[in-house]
Amino acid sequence: MDYKEKFSEDVGSFFRSPVREIFRKVDLNSIYSFAGGYPSADTFPLEEIRRTMSEVIDKYGARAFQYGATQGVPELREAIASRYGVGVERVQVTSSSQQGIDVCTRVLVDPGDVILTSEPSYLGALQSFRSYRADVRGIRHDQDIEIYSRNCEEAVERACRDGKKIKFLYIIPDFQNPSGETLTLQERQMLVGLAERHDFLIVEDCPYRELRYSGKAVPTMYSMAPDRVLHLGSFSKIFAPGFRLGWAIAHPDLLDSIYVCKQSLDLCPPVFDQYVAAEFLGSGRLDLNLAKSIALYRGKRDLMLSLLEEHMPAGVSWTHPEGGLFLFLTMPEGFDAVRFYDRALDAGVAYVAGEFFYPQRGGKNTMRLNFSFMDKERMVAGIQLLASLLRDELCAR
Amino acid sequence: MDYKEKFSEDVGSFFRSPVREIFRKVDLNSIYSFAGGYPSADTFPLEEIRRTMSEVIDKYGARAFQYGATQGVPELREAIASRYGVGVERVQVTSSSQQGIDVCTRVLVDPGDVILTSEPSYLGALQSFRSYRADVRGIRHDQDIEIYSRNCEEAVERACRDGKKIKFLYIIPDFQNPSGETLTLQERQMLVGLAERHDFLIVEDCPYRELRYSGKAVPTMYSMAPDRVLHLGSFSKIFAPGFRLGWAIAHPDLLDSIYVCKQSLDLCPPVFDQYVAAEFLGSGRLDLNLAKSIALYRGKRDLMLSLLEEHMPAGVSWTHPEGGLFLFLTMPEGFDAVRFYDRALDAGVAYVAGEFFYPQRGGKNTMRLNFSFMDKERMVAGIQLLASLLRDELCAR
Repeated sequence: MDYKEKFSEDVGSFFRSPVREIFRKVDLNSIYSFAGGYPSADTFPLEEIRRTMSEVIDKYGARAFQYGATQGVPELREAIASRYGVGVERVQVTSSSQQGIDVCTRVLVDPGDVILTSEPSYLGALQSFRSYRADVRGIRHDQDIEIYSRNCEEAVERACRDGKKIKFLYIIPDFQNPSGETLTLQERQMLVGLAERHDFLIVEDCPYRELRYSGKAVPTMYSMAPDRVLHLGSFSKIFAPGFRLGWAIAHPDLLDSIYVCKQSLDLCPPVFDQYVAAEFLGSGRLDLNLAKSIALYRGKRDLMLSLLEEHMPAGVSWTHPEGGLFLFLTMPEGFDAVRFYDRALDAGVAYVAGEFFYPQRGGKNTMRLNFSFMDKERMVAGIQLLASLLRDELCAR
Repeated sequence: MDYKEKFSEDVGSFFRSPVREIFRKVDLNSIYSFAGGYPSADTFPLEEIRRTMSEVIDKYGARAFQYGATQGVPELREAIASRYGVGVERVQVTSSSQQGIDVCTRVLVDPGDVILTSEPSYLGALQSFRSYRADVRGIRHDQDIEIYSRNCEEAVERACRDGKKIKFLYIIPDFQNPSGETLTLQERQMLVGLAERHDFLIVEDCPYRELRYSGKAVPTMYSMAPDRVLHLGSFSKIFAPGFRLGWAIAHPDLLDSIYVCKQSLDLCPPVFDQYVAAEFLGSGRLDLNLAKSIALYRGKRDLMLSLLEEHMPAGVSWTHPEGGLFLFLTMPEGFDAVRFYDRALDAGVAYVAGEFFYPQRGGKNTMRLNFSFMDKERMVAGIQLLASLLRDELCAR
């Protein structure tokens, strides 16, 4: 049977995640993988999780295995609300922060509506946006705020000229995926001002915010405009991605549409996992473990930066993230990171080509490197290998 | 800020689940609740789950807390494939079987496309269908297969006459929600033949299939037409709903669109929960526990039927389910179960008005009663109370 003719129009805009396709074909432990956004296995406190799970069974009994409220179990919503200083009526637990992105798009975007993003931006978000046939438009960042601001204004004006509705700006302000860069206070204020002037929303995605290794925290955009910004958080990087839990914080009227949508999406987030997260958070174990993760990742970031410094050939540059899981490499013009990928994988090292993160193509000469997943020994060998492959490639040109 | 003007067109078709709204307002344990589709808390084997969780941590370690494959972890996919006798390439794990329904609709239905359902049908499915602006058309069941078959043909012809595409027939063949009824072999064959003749798909939703208390199992529609039927299953009723795990079984080409969609929906199903389900299934604990649940529910169904027989006033009739969690009451014409609901709740007993399960209104004089959730003592008191309220209401007319 030919199923293609049966599919909805949306399916025509689906595209596969190149990252997930890599994982489908390659055993991550058999290669040097800078590809995924995986936390280090060393950050999962197995014994403390085992203990917490047992405590959850003692404390909540059958309730932990029953259906739960669509908004999330009260214990977790309250723990999130108190951690981030917001009213509990502004907290919706999501079944992963990817779901947060997806459900925002679902309730806000009709085919053809404009979503503004940074360029490059998170691949999973681009997948979701495209799947609803949004008109995704990237804005090039610039260190000079005058230029960045002009780029933003121009993107807005272009959308207006095209007769399009801008539904929201999607932004990862802290240690962005894939670039690793963090927006300054002034940049955040500029973006909030832009959204206010042109009356669109901001979806602020903050999965890495608490993984800061140096520098000082910058206020969230949500804190600047709590009725205009929908803030997304995740337990994946501060606890464990295997639980698939995140949260959305927003004005109750906006959250209500997400709540009703979530009823038909999956009724409620995983209940047992929510109690485990609530207990882990409430007992202070999460913060203790997070401090250890930060120390571990700080060391890995520093090592990665010094390895790049030591081994990368001339003409290659990279970002210097203050936190998160990624940094972004730029090779000389003309380099093609997608074409180079097969050679690298054959040699035993994986990355994600930067091009995939560009909403309207571009970034052919870039790649994203993850520094959280591998242990330090493998990171050393992996960067040496990647650097030597790059040296060969760049010399041959 | 007025968010309404920012919402997508889909939001205009969202509707709230009256069932979930009841749970939002009322503590289920403070009333006699025949409302939800909740399993009995007695069916959750807390100590065995605790042991299994500990075994999962020992066996899989950090892998149980890391990101997993979008299709589901191989161990669970294989366990499902072998349990139901299908190839593993035909199994996609879903984050709840509600997600299975939703994602099928997403990949198959454009606004205005027709979905055929039984009348009444599962509320969560109707919510999802409407949220994609499907044209949902109910088909009245009839004990006489000639009449039922004619009803089906007429629904198809009407859709064709209206120039509409029928995307699929959604059906719960075993112990239907809300009616409790089971389709005969002949009826299933008739429906499969209809789908083949008119070239539409069938989404067969089987969350209750393994909860059979009497009578003989009827083959699934998937077994009759494995390339035309998308089969949905759930761990919610045979294990525990708090894990939010289900599965979809279908032709790989059809499943592939769901796989790609799921990447942007939530990346992957909850990983730790999947390993727990896989271990519970593989070790035989699931089947042992299921046998106990069936014995418990059989007793509850029998008690419910005899209580109705004993206490219900004349003019009230009900279905006699061979399994599942529900039976369906029909009161005399003119009775309004939605209006009566407030009175019942004030008196301390909850049900779901049948009307909510009707895709095009109707069923005003019906209600769904759940017999799995409450213990037997509370069931006795609850039915006595409901019957006396009904007697008052029906006499007063």
